[in-house]
Amino acid sequence: MAELASWTDGSTKSAIVDFVGRVTTEGGPDYVEPQERVAVFDNDGTLWCEKPMYIQLDFLIRRFTEQAKADPSLRERQPYKAAAEGDLTWFGEAVTKHYQGDDSDVKPLVGAILTAHYEITVEEHRSRVEAFFAEAKHPTLGRTYTACGYQPMVELLRYLEAGGFMCYIVSGGGRDFMRPVTSALYGIPPERVVGSSVGLNYRGGDLYTTSQPEFLDDGPMKPVRLWSRIGRRPILAAGNSNGDIEMLEFTRGLRLLVLHDDADREFDYTAGAEKALEQAAKDDWTVVSMRNDWTAVFSDQ
Amino acid sequence: MAELASWTDGSTKSAIVDFVGRVTTEGGPDYVEPQERVAVFDNDGTLWCEKPMYIQLDFLIRRFTEQAKADPSLRERQPYKAAAEGDLTWFGEAVTKHYQGDDSDVKPLVGAILTAHYEITVEEHRSRVEAFFAEAKHPTLGRTYTACGYQPMVELLRYLEAGGFMCYIVSGGGRDFMRPVTSALYGIPPERVVGSSVGLNYRGGDLYTTSQPEFLDDGPMKPVRLWSRIGRRPILAAGNSNGDIEMLEFTRGLRLLVLHDDADREFDYTAGAEKALEQAAKDDWTVVSMRNDWTAVFSDQ
Repeated sequence: MAELASWTDGSTKSAIVDFVGRVTTEGGPDYVEPQERVAVFDNDGTLWCEKPMYIQLDFLIRRFTEQAKADPSLRERQPYKAAAEGDLTWFGEAVTKHYQGDDSDVKPLVGAILTAHYEITVEEHRSRVEAFFAEAKHPTLGRTYTACGYQPMVELLRYLEAGGFMCYIVSGGGRDFMRPVTSALYGIPPERVVGSSVGLNYRGGDLYTTSQPEFLDDGPMKPVRLWSRIGRRPILAAGNSNGDIEMLEFTRGLRLLVLHDDADREFDYTAGAEKALEQAAKDDWTVVSMRNDWTAVFSDQ
Repeated sequence: MAELASWTDGSTKSAIVDFVGRVTTEGGPDYVEPQERVAVFDNDGTLWCEKPMYIQLDFLIRRFTEQAKADPSLRERQPYKAAAEGDLTWFGEAVTKHYQGDDSDVKPLVGAILTAHYEITVEEHRSRVEAFFAEAKHPTLGRTYTACGYQPMVELLRYLEAGGFMCYIVSGGGRDFMRPVTSALYGIPPERVVGSSVGLNYRGGDLYTTSQPEFLDDGPMKPVRLWSRIGRRPILAAGNSNGDIEMLEFTRGLRLLVLHDDADREFDYTAGAEKALEQAAKDDWTVVSMRNDWTAVFSDQ
């Protein structure tokens, strides 16, 4: 399969190829009409790197640093304190603790996130995101964030599209943070990006960001949000963390769980994915080993 | 223009043809890239009939009648009383009063709507909608509801798609009420239907309807909801009532307002559209006269 060039031959690649073959075989017992071939992909840790911290967190931390510079009283409080001191560990641990059920650090972080880009138009928000991606680099992998997409997953998106699938991103990350770059990174246009968002407020011909959460597109909200956006039950889903369990359960068909076991080329961790890995074993989801199933992780390797 | 066969030659058709010509002329001053050619359409009164009452109201009234039959105490209260007595006027007036700023009848109606199809899976909801459309007929026009779409607007959808546009429905009506029929009626698939909804609750692999409102996709919420779903600012919008004003304002390009002035073939009314018509005159929106601009209203005429 030239289309899946960065996948090693083996049971994982076979599971994908067999599934796509079955649902696209007209007259076959598992045939699915093209308009029902919906595939959904988590983003952080599934399509691009999420360690040592979410890429969106870097975007936000730069903003917190700016805010703490403008208002020094903020430096006494988290997360502005950690941002101003360059203590990135605090942020990574806040997220891991969240996926382990402890929200004590995530709460003040969420409050700061909600007010980081507040009361600006959606177009101004897009400009800030574009400015970030034009210059920001991954802290340890020696590459720009726009080069942090997983090449085998991009090949999978194209392979599915060639099989008539409609591919969507369904991420806990910010909807309007992802949209400016998903076309270039993954070939996924803005209208097929589902994610978290603050509320928006219409005024005088424009839409402004508010500081109120509207969606946190994670866990049991993933099937709710994807139904709202797509109105169909997916037949393929890919995720990597405990926040993807419900989306994978809701999917009738192939369920992929990306396992980060490649310290040489990316990262090696299961924190925040413990329950998902348990359920994968129990429910026969297909675990994708970065180390064993991918010949390359990034497009320039 | 064979593609707009049911539109009379004149300034309205010219405005459409000229606009599409300008945005699709590569190298021209008004050229718009295909992926940015987003068109949004209200549904009730813009793509299909909304008089003597919303089609969804007929669906709901049948349910209220069932509920009042099962629980006679409901017959003392509106809207179950009106439903049980066949007093359809009460419902039509409730909606007109809403668009004129008086919500006294809409409030109990909304409460009943929210609990009409409560605690069922999204698939069971779709089955109820399909059963309704398989048999229900328009009360005065002598046709099934699935034959109540406006033929000239369907031609416009196809004409825009031929020009590379992506067309979406953005309606105050129920998202999951419209989705089962929009493909057949308009060629618009479920993923391009934006509308109102109750909240959904994920449980054990399925999504269940709740009795909580999630979205009321009307007025200033229309631009908010369409941004959430599409992530682009439309370049063409069509509506017909006061609830469409903000969506039309948010659109940079051609704004169409359907005027119901055809008592012979459809209906003749401006109630609930007064402000929209004022703004159309002020801001140079294109008013579509059903009587003058359309040679046929329905496909079988």
